[in-house]
Amino acid sequence: MKIALAQLNYTIGAFEENVSKILQAVDTARASKSDLVVFSELSVCGYPPLDLLEHKFFIEKCNEAVQHIASCIKDDIAVIVGAPSINTGSEGKNLFNSAYFITNGKIEHVIDKSLLPTYDIFDEYRYFEPSGHQNIVEFKGKRLAITVCEDLWYEQPLLTDFGKNKPYNVNPLEKLNASGFDFIINIAASPFAHNHVSVKESILRENAIKYNKPIVYVNQTGAHTELIFDGASRVIDSKGSTVLQLPSFEESICFIDIDKIIAGKAVMQRLLQEDKISLIHDAIVLGIRDYFRKMGFKNAILGLSGGIDSAVSLVLAAKALGAPNVRALLLPSQYSSEHSVTDAIKLADNQHIQYDIVPINDIFSAYLSTLDPVFNNSRPDVTEENIQARIRGALLMAVSNKFGNLLLNTSNKSEAAVGYGTLYGDMMGSLSVLGDIYKTEVYGLARYINRNEEIIPVNSIIKPPSAELRADQKDSDSLPEYELLDGILYNYIELRKSADEIVAAGFDKDVVMRVVKMVNTSEYKRSQAPPVLRVSSKAFGFGRRMPLVAKY
Amino acid sequence: MKIALAQLNYTIGAFEENVSKILQAVDTARASKSDLVVFSELSVCGYPPLDLLEHKFFIEKCNEAVQHIASCIKDDIAVIVGAPSINTGSEGKNLFNSAYFITNGKIEHVIDKSLLPTYDIFDEYRYFEPSGHQNIVEFKGKRLAITVCEDLWYEQPLLTDFGKNKPYNVNPLEKLNASGFDFIINIAASPFAHNHVSVKESILRENAIKYNKPIVYVNQTGAHTELIFDGASRVIDSKGSTVLQLPSFEESICFIDIDKIIAGKAVMQRLLQEDKISLIHDAIVLGIRDYFRKMGFKNAILGLSGGIDSAVSLVLAAKALGAPNVRALLLPSQYSSEHSVTDAIKLADNQHIQYDIVPINDIFSAYLSTLDPVFNNSRPDVTEENIQARIRGALLMAVSNKFGNLLLNTSNKSEAAVGYGTLYGDMMGSLSVLGDIYKTEVYGLARYINRNEEIIPVNSIIKPPSAELRADQKDSDSLPEYELLDGILYNYIELRKSADEIVAAGFDKDVVMRVVKMVNTSEYKRSQAPPVLRVSSKAFGFGRRMPLVAKY
Repeated sequence: MKIALAQLNYTIGAFEENVSKILQAVDTARASKSDLVVFSELSVCGYPPLDLLEHKFFIEKCNEAVQHIASCIKDDIAVIVGAPSINTGSEGKNLFNSAYFITNGKIEHVIDKSLLPTYDIFDEYRYFEPSGHQNIVEFKGKRLAITVCEDLWYEQPLLTDFGKNKPYNVNPLEKLNASGFDFIINIAASPFAHNHVSVKESILRENAIKYNKPIVYVNQTGAHTELIFDGASRVIDSKGSTVLQLPSFEESICFIDIDKIIAGKAVMQRLLQEDKISLIHDAIVLGIRDYFRKMGFKNAILGLSGGIDSAVSLVLAAKALGAPNVRALLLPSQYSSEHSVTDAIKLADNQHIQYDIVPINDIFSAYLSTLDPVFNNSRPDVTEENIQARIRGALLMAVSNKFGNLLLNTSNKSEAAVGYGTLYGDMMGSLSVLGDIYKTEVYGLARYINRNEEIIPVNSIIKPPSAELRADQKDSDSLPEYELLDGILYNYIELRKSADEIVAAGFDKDVVMRVVKMVNTSEYKRSQAPPVLRVSSKAFGFGRRMPLVAKY
Repeated sequence: MKIALAQLNYTIGAFEENVSKILQAVDTARASKSDLVVFSELSVCGYPPLDLLEHKFFIEKCNEAVQHIASCIKDDIAVIVGAPSINTGSEGKNLFNSAYFITNGKIEHVIDKSLLPTYDIFDEYRYFEPSGHQNIVEFKGKRLAITVCEDLWYEQPLLTDFGKNKPYNVNPLEKLNASGFDFIINIAASPFAHNHVSVKESILRENAIKYNKPIVYVNQTGAHTELIFDGASRVIDSKGSTVLQLPSFEESICFIDIDKIIAGKAVMQRLLQEDKISLIHDAIVLGIRDYFRKMGFKNAILGLSGGIDSAVSLVLAAKALGAPNVRALLLPSQYSSEHSVTDAIKLADNQHIQYDIVPINDIFSAYLSTLDPVFNNSRPDVTEENIQARIRGALLMAVSNKFGNLLLNTSNKSEAAVGYGTLYGDMMGSLSVLGDIYKTEVYGLARYINRNEEIIPVNSIIKPPSAELRADQKDSDSLPEYELLDGILYNYIELRKSADEIVAAGFDKDVVMRVVKMVNTSEYKRSQAPPVLRVSSKAFGFGRRMPLVAKY
């Protein structure tokens, strides 16, 4: 039996486009004599559709799309697509998250998801009822265990460091195993996170080994606002070895002969060994590209400060959108160093990016004189720094409004964490490029970008970071050194350690207390920040829901 | 048996403060010879603690607080408090949402919540495992059915208009009823929504009638960022009549003799009949007050335009914080009408509010001349309007930064819905006062505020709404009349009707299509808006999660 793995990039709610992609892939699979084509979870509507699932018109469109696909599959090729289905029972949530098994013009089986991830960025129990039963699908003499994404995740690493480690009450694979099957199909919508790649790998491997059966895993690719799906669909043999891996961050259709794999005759491929930084790089490029494409925009704008964050953001944006579609503003003030302009120009020239130099001094002076009667000779403080950041933001938004370029935000995760940024100033933007990337990782990205040639001026990489909002300002005036800061932040945010535990791990108590307090008191700022391209297992935004008003 | 209903206002994570409130209320109850004191859901830690529940240190503090309470109850008075408890089983989520029954220095019973709301603003299944069993608590000769909030909501109105209407698979009251009980205790954290008041009432009434038993319902009061809890705790007799109702939006301890109520001898009280607008008014005042108090701020600032939205916001802020703690800026431009300033001054004077007049013309000119080389003689458009709104926002934030006044946002729900506002301009603010109140309801609030005297200048109420960002601009140039607009919005947002259904209900097709499109394309704006004080059953923000990048 020949199986096609169709790893495609869907748009949420774009039924016509998604269905047409699916049908084209079916044609491709048919042309190569496939018996079965597997698409990813909720492929018909795109994942995650969020509260669109609460709208009747959306569910009706999902159903119509599935019916249309069925009506187009007139032969005995089988197709597995993902879409919501209505729970016709008298109790429970209104929908199931389902895999539709379609062949010969008919929906032959609807298999519902059992394990509904409801943590981090996942809200599936908000919409879906867990399936109560597991059925094997028989097709061309084979017994298929068709599962949806999390159904393989009965055993998974701890989400918190209290309690125990099995978040669900049922293991659907055990039930399927009791009936007996030849191989597992898993349709997924599993977002990329650099520190989750190996977890996903081991979940697949361990299930294959435990049940001694191959797994055909099809994930979607493409980005939906903050979520970036890598794809990286694969086939694992019953020994847990990967025998096929589709590329990350792009569409791909690949084929396998499942009989060979069941017989243990498939040659094991080397896993694509990509390092963390190159994966993050490719993820961000796809994240920017899909945000613009799916929003219907072509052009970006960003502020170039001569520093490393805006430099890295610019290169990634140019890669994603093409240099002619990216525009930069240099916004020097009286506090800007000369190199901030020269480094920025050097980069823009390197990358063939259109730029304007728009000094903010006149506007800044106008603010100060306008506010003079209100401020009444008070001493300059962070207020005047924020005014400069807000002028820069307003100028970027003005060019954005005038010419239709979406503003990219260039703040990094370290800054976002401690609130080192001006709300409605440098925190503006339609999308945060680096908001899930710690400062120390931004350096890694810069070096990766420069691996073959000096694209980002070395001076932007080696100079001490500065916001340049007052004379001789350095980030290190307000913040611990980034190596130290990022270490504390990783423990607090990703690992959810308490301040006491972080101190016990060897960090300086005063620094830890200061950093933790900065994180806690910046929730209100982050709550108004742009969506952050998520590349870690705990990004700011939708997947991290801390109270704004609380004492802790 | 005498029962005290303790309706208190907790702060999330403020264990010391919460526990001290609880113990003080126990003292009060003891002094009045109560046998049992009932507190609300998650009273020990405050509701909703959100992702703090994923932190071990937070759970430990919850446990310590409950242990401390137990150690302080040395006599035979019983206390029911709410706190998370750890799921010691080997499967399922790590926590239960529990009611602790404490007496004689010991935790005698821990009763776990069965029905976990996971819709709108509720994410309980993100953290909690549903209870699998229901036990009756015997105390002083009575059999108590202790339930947590949603446990009474097995039967509830449809959340969507497809599927069926029972969102849960089990009715905990049925199980409890099989064991037999004398009355129901329900500890709740049920937020206020003006169009939900009667639903809540009927849920309580119908359960009382169905099981023919009284219900003692204790809700928390107080606001946590966007959520405002009214309290309105009450006692319903077995015929479904309310025999005691605690006040809305304030702390209160009341006492009942449950034997009298069981015997049907309690005199039925008249329900406090408050109208929608007065409830919204009181909710918003509490929402502002608690946001500031729990954030540790005293002073607010807002921009006064002479229009109705900022006028109503100012009055509500003054009520919440005291007039001396509210400051206003009047920010006229060349497009401001004379009455915009005179009406604003009249209001500020009425309310004894400190104000400054800060004209934005000089800054606006500086922006235009700075941008001139970039804009290159392009025609003025919405860009120039946005610049003005952003200057106003930046000036308000400057005074906020300089003097420590939190900025209140004054946009209404109609504007927020259709994106009629400038991101990083008039959409700035730490808290949105009117963001869940349609423009037509804002008029109702203004009339309510003026019910005894002219507080808001009548001219602010009767003049045609205008943003005054260009000459002779009126809201009606860009938007349908508000009566019409709000009707369409209510159908689309609250009732989740499709555009087709709204047209079928009699609205003009072109207008409906235009409005729905404006709502759909403004998600990115709203995603960066301040938290909105929620007073309806579907507010923008946390409870409404629409994809930013989608086609629909």
